Amino acid sequence: MTRFALTLEFDGTPFMGLQRQPHGPSVQESVERAIRAVTGEEVTLHSAGRTDTGVHALAMRSHVDIEKPFEPFRLMEALNALLRPDPIAVTGCQIVPDEWHARFSCTGRAYEYRIVNRRAPLTLERNRAWQVPQPLDAEAMHRAAQALVGRHDFTTFRSAHCQAASPVKTLDRLAVRRAGDEVLIAAEARSFLHHQVRSMVGCLALVGMGRWPVGQVASALAARDRQELGFNAPPHGLYFVKATYPGES
Amino acid sequence: MTRFALTLEFDGTPFMGLQRQPHGPSVQESVERAIRAVTGEEVTLHSAGRTDTGVHALAMRSHVDIEKPFEPFRLMEALNALLRPDPIAVTGCQIVPDEWHARFSCTGRAYEYRIVNRRAPLTLERNRAWQVPQPLDAEAMHRAAQALVGRHDFTTFRSAHCQAASPVKTLDRLAVRRAGDEVLIAAEARSFLHHQVRSMVGCLALVGMGRWPVGQVASALAARDRQELGFNAPPHGLYFVKATYPGES
Repeated sequence: MTRFALTLEFDGTPFMGLQRQPHGPSVQESVERAIRAVTGEEVTLHSAGRTDTGVHALAMRSHVDIEKPFEPFRLMEALNALLRPDPIAVTGCQIVPDEWHARFSCTGRAYEYRIVNRRAPLTLERNRAWQVPQPLDAEAMHRAAQALVGRHDFTTFRSAHCQAASPVKTLDRLAVRRAGDEVLIAAEARSFLHHQVRSMVGCLALVGMGRWPVGQVASALAARDRQELGFNAPPHGLYFVKATYPGES
Repeated sequence: MTRFALTLEFDGTPFMGLQRQPHGPSVQESVERAIRAVTGEEVTLHSAGRTDTGVHALAMRSHVDIEKPFEPFRLMEALNALLRPDPIAVTGCQIVPDEWHARFSCTGRAYEYRIVNRRAPLTLERNRAWQVPQPLDAEAMHRAAQALVGRHDFTTFRSAHCQAASPVKTLDRLAVRRAGDEVLIAAEARSFLHHQVRSMVGCLALVGMGRWPVGQVASALAARDRQELGFNAPPHGLYFVKATYPGES
């Protein structure tokens, strides 16, 4: 048995999310099907993060155990050939020790949220960013975001369906910057609650539009009450960009 | 009668090109239909460039004459609301003098060609770039490209369907640069022959792969013979990025 770590890039638009779902297509189902076609083995794909319907990944990390011997490059090429109809690509494949676990060994997760701040509807970026027509004050959003950095009870920013044992998480970074007509939000933590990034972005957008004062994000956090939440930003602006593991930079 | 200049952004994937076609959807048909719905007038859209099936535009410039008075911002908003099912957006709208012509007044056209140089198939960039799996030497491509800059007979790089009166064109700029795993090719001229950019990119890619020596691009040009052409790069990597007019920067 050999454990292979895979790096996955995918367009989340046609999927019900990364993890297998009974009621629709998932990235996990497509990748497991491709591995079964190559190896003849029933496998389970384990991944660093879960993603919702429509959420994208630039470099999700996953692992799978395979009995037959494979050269990692050949395995990657075979999987990409089989995955081709789906917008999923294996951009990295390596053999890892048996104790390496894509989810449990992961010590850091990074997301990026993309807003295109303009009145015109999106064309090439449709389903790849959230279009916000009202002018956004990215500097105010960044200032508001700093209240969320650190170790907090994030109950306000947690989905009702969140399965985490505790609402307490340590947010390492939440940075907002403008690049032309885009507003980009980078979020980094060891782990996140379900819907946490989209909830935080939703509140920051309200600040950016001037509908919330900068300080309201801090008071929403302190309230530990989901009723204080503005709204969740839509999934199609969210990208899983990096998973960090011990010994990797 | 008022002449409106429109700036159009579109994802070319679902269209047979910018100009109206008898046998399939076009950007022109969609925009004319939206203008007719707003104004009740039959109009003809004139544009700076023609684009092939699958070619994109970040800022195509077009014009249209409308009898009824409209405030440009209101017209743009109404068109965007009607265009929304199609991946076409009006990103600018202004009143211009009657003698301003999107095609005939245009003094410069700029295209960008995007190559993603990696083995893995594209996901989020599918239909938005050309994936080339062989490693490309972007510096060699740039050196080869310089032989094409200037005033030349571009017969080698011209489609059999090209309707231009002369194959002689002045290419102002052809620059190749690498940005991560992307190779970006910028082309600027007063005007181009049909398929000229895609033909030039095809030959430069052969240089980048090492299948053509750097000097072969110059000798292909000098031959003035379409048999010397390597191949046309696919349309989905090509973007019309800018049209220049007198008095605009």
